[in-house]
Amino acid sequence: MSPSVDQTAALDLPALGIDIGGTKVAGGVVLPDGTITDTARRATPGKSVSATEDAIAAVVEELADRHGGPLVGVGVGAAGWFDRTGDTVLFSPHLAWRNQPLRKDLGTRLQRPLWVGNDADAAAWAEYRYGAARGSDLALVITLGTGIGGGMVIDGRLQRGAHGVAGEWGHMRVVPDGRLCACGNRGCWEQYASGNALGQTAREVANSSPAAAASLLERVEGQADRLTGEHVATAAAAGDPLALELLAEVGTWLGQGIADLSAVLDPGVVVIGGGVSVLGEMVLGPARARLERALPGRGFRPGPQVLAAELGAQAGLVGAADLVRRAVAEGVA
Amino acid sequence: MSPSVDQTAALDLPALGIDIGGTKVAGGVVLPDGTITDTARRATPGKSVSATEDAIAAVVEELADRHGGPLVGVGVGAAGWFDRTGDTVLFSPHLAWRNQPLRKDLGTRLQRPLWVGNDADAAAWAEYRYGAARGSDLALVITLGTGIGGGMVIDGRLQRGAHGVAGEWGHMRVVPDGRLCACGNRGCWEQYASGNALGQTAREVANSSPAAAASLLERVEGQADRLTGEHVATAAAAGDPLALELLAEVGTWLGQGIADLSAVLDPGVVVIGGGVSVLGEMVLGPARARLERALPGRGFRPGPQVLAAELGAQAGLVGAADLVRRAVAEGVA
Repeated sequence: MSPSVDQTAALDLPALGIDIGGTKVAGGVVLPDGTITDTARRATPGKSVSATEDAIAAVVEELADRHGGPLVGVGVGAAGWFDRTGDTVLFSPHLAWRNQPLRKDLGTRLQRPLWVGNDADAAAWAEYRYGAARGSDLALVITLGTGIGGGMVIDGRLQRGAHGVAGEWGHMRVVPDGRLCACGNRGCWEQYASGNALGQTAREVANSSPAAAASLLERVEGQADRLTGEHVATAAAAGDPLALELLAEVGTWLGQGIADLSAVLDPGVVVIGGGVSVLGEMVLGPARARLERALPGRGFRPGPQVLAAELGAQAGLVGAADLVRRAVAEGVA
Repeated sequence: MSPSVDQTAALDLPALGIDIGGTKVAGGVVLPDGTITDTARRATPGKSVSATEDAIAAVVEELADRHGGPLVGVGVGAAGWFDRTGDTVLFSPHLAWRNQPLRKDLGTRLQRPLWVGNDADAAAWAEYRYGAARGSDLALVITLGTGIGGGMVIDGRLQRGAHGVAGEWGHMRVVPDGRLCACGNRGCWEQYASGNALGQTAREVANSSPAAAASLLERVEGQADRLTGEHVATAAAAGDPLALELLAEVGTWLGQGIADLSAVLDPGVVVIGGGVSVLGEMVLGPARARLERALPGRGFRPGPQVLAAELGAQAGLVGAADLVRRAVAEGVA
C-alpha cells in the first residue's frame, strides 16, 4: 500500500495510533519511544459501519495533514473480537461490526500500512513496551472497566490465541450459577471484579440494607437502583467505610482471578489497567492480599508481581501505533 | 558433557526418555519419529533422593548398554514443579525432592546431555510432536489422573511460564468454598474433574443414597468409603447407569474448565490424556456438550477441538526424549 515506507526504517518513524471506543474515535501521532505529539478525536456513530469508518478516516487525515512528515502507518485498536489475522472483526459489543472485513475496508479507504486488532491487546502491548510490564517474559494486562478485558505478551509477542480471541478472561466462570453476564453465561469473573460489579453489589446492599448504605444513598437521592460503580468510587475516595469495603470486595475477586490465571499461565507480571485501576491501592491492596493466600503452590513457587498500569487511557492508541510499526518492519502490515 | 553429540546430528539420533512417577522409574530408547525400541523400569524409592537418582541411573545404564549405538542424551520428566530453567525441582508431591538441583545431580551422575522437566509438560510435547495435537499453533494437553496435570505448546514451543509452573490448571478455583484440595485451597478444578473426583462423588452418593448406589456398593462389599474412581469406571464400562451418570458429571466439569481455559488462551486443540481419558467418549462426550453451551462468545468464534490423547502412558518418556534431542540441537542441553 502507498505511501510505502522502507521496512528497515519503520522502527524509527512516528506512527498513527487509533483507539475506537463505544462513544469516540481517538487518535494520536506516536513516536517510537511512545511519546504522543498530537491528538484528534471524533464521535463514534456506533450504529453505522460506514459512518464509523468515516470517523476513523477523518481522524487519520487530520493527524496526517498536521504532521506533514513520514508516518509508518496506522494502528487501529477497537473494542471487539478479531480473528487471528486481524483481518476481520468477528463481533463488537458497542459497534455495528459483525464479521466485518475491517482491515480490507480501512486499507482501501486509508491507503496506508495497517495494524488492526483488539483494543485491550493494543493496551497490553503498550504496557509491555513502555509501561509497567516493560521487558517481562510473560505479562498479562487486565483491563478493569465496565467489564474485564485483557491482553498478554509472551516471549516478546502479543499472543492472541488460535482464533484471535485469547485474553477474554473476564468470562472465566468463577461462581457456578452466579450473576448473569451479558455474554449469556452466569458467574463470569467480570460480574464480580469490574466497575459494573461494583455498582451491582452497591445496589444489592442498598436495597437490602438501606441503613448501612445511607451515605451512598444520599448520592442518588435515596434511589438505590441509580447507584453505579462511579458513585462508590467517589464515596471511597471521600473515606466512606461501606464504599471502601465494596472496593475491597472487588479487589479480593480480582486477586482470586489472578491466582486462577497464575495456575494456568504462571505470569511474571500482572498489570491492572482500565478505569477501575485509577482507584489504585484501594483495589490492588486487597487483590495482592488475596493472591498471596490463594496462589496455588504458594511457598514453593514465586507468584506474579501485581502492578498498576502506567500509560492510562492512552495505552490503546500508543500500543496500536507501535504494533503497526512492528508489522511494517516485519513486512506484514 | 560427554559423550558429546554433534549438534546438527542431534535431531536424527535416538534419545533416552525417562518418566518418574510415584511408584516407578520407566525409561525407553526413542527414535526421532517417536518409536520406542526398548524399555526398562525400576521401583521408585520415593522417600530417598539419592535412591531415586540411583534408580534413574540404573535405568539409563541398562538401556544405554543394550542400545550400544549413539544416543543424543537423556530426557527426564518427573511429577513435580520445576523452575523455569528446569535446573531445580521446587516441589514434588510423591518424591522427596524439595528445591533439589536435580539437573546438576543427574548431570554429574550420568555424564550425558540432559533435559529435565515436568512429566505433564513432556507428555504435552509428545502429543504435539506425534499425537493428537500434531502441528497445532496453540495446544493444551490436560492430563486427567488422580488429579489434573497439564502442559501447553504455543507456536511450537513448550510454554512453562515465567517461573516454570504454568499449566497447573487443576488448581483453578471453580467453586468458591468448594471441596478441599491437597494444595490447601478449596474448590480446585481437579476436585471435580479427575479420578479422585469420581471416587469422591461416588462415595458421597453411596453414603447419602445407598439404594441408588446399590450396584456400585456391591463392588466394595457395601462399604461406601472404599469406592474409588476405578470402581466407577469399571461399573460404567459394564453399563451401570449411576456410574455412567457420575462419569458424565466429571465430563461436564471437564467441559466447563475447557470453556474457562478457552476464555483465557483460546486454544486450537485441547487434548485429554491421563488414566481417566481411557474412558473415552463416556467422559469426552459430556465435556464437548458442556463446552458447546459454555464457550464464551459461542456463535461469534470457533472453539477448540477436544480430542483424546493418542500416545497413552508412554507420552511422558517419548516427549522427554524428544525434548533432550531439541535441547542438544539448540545447544542448551
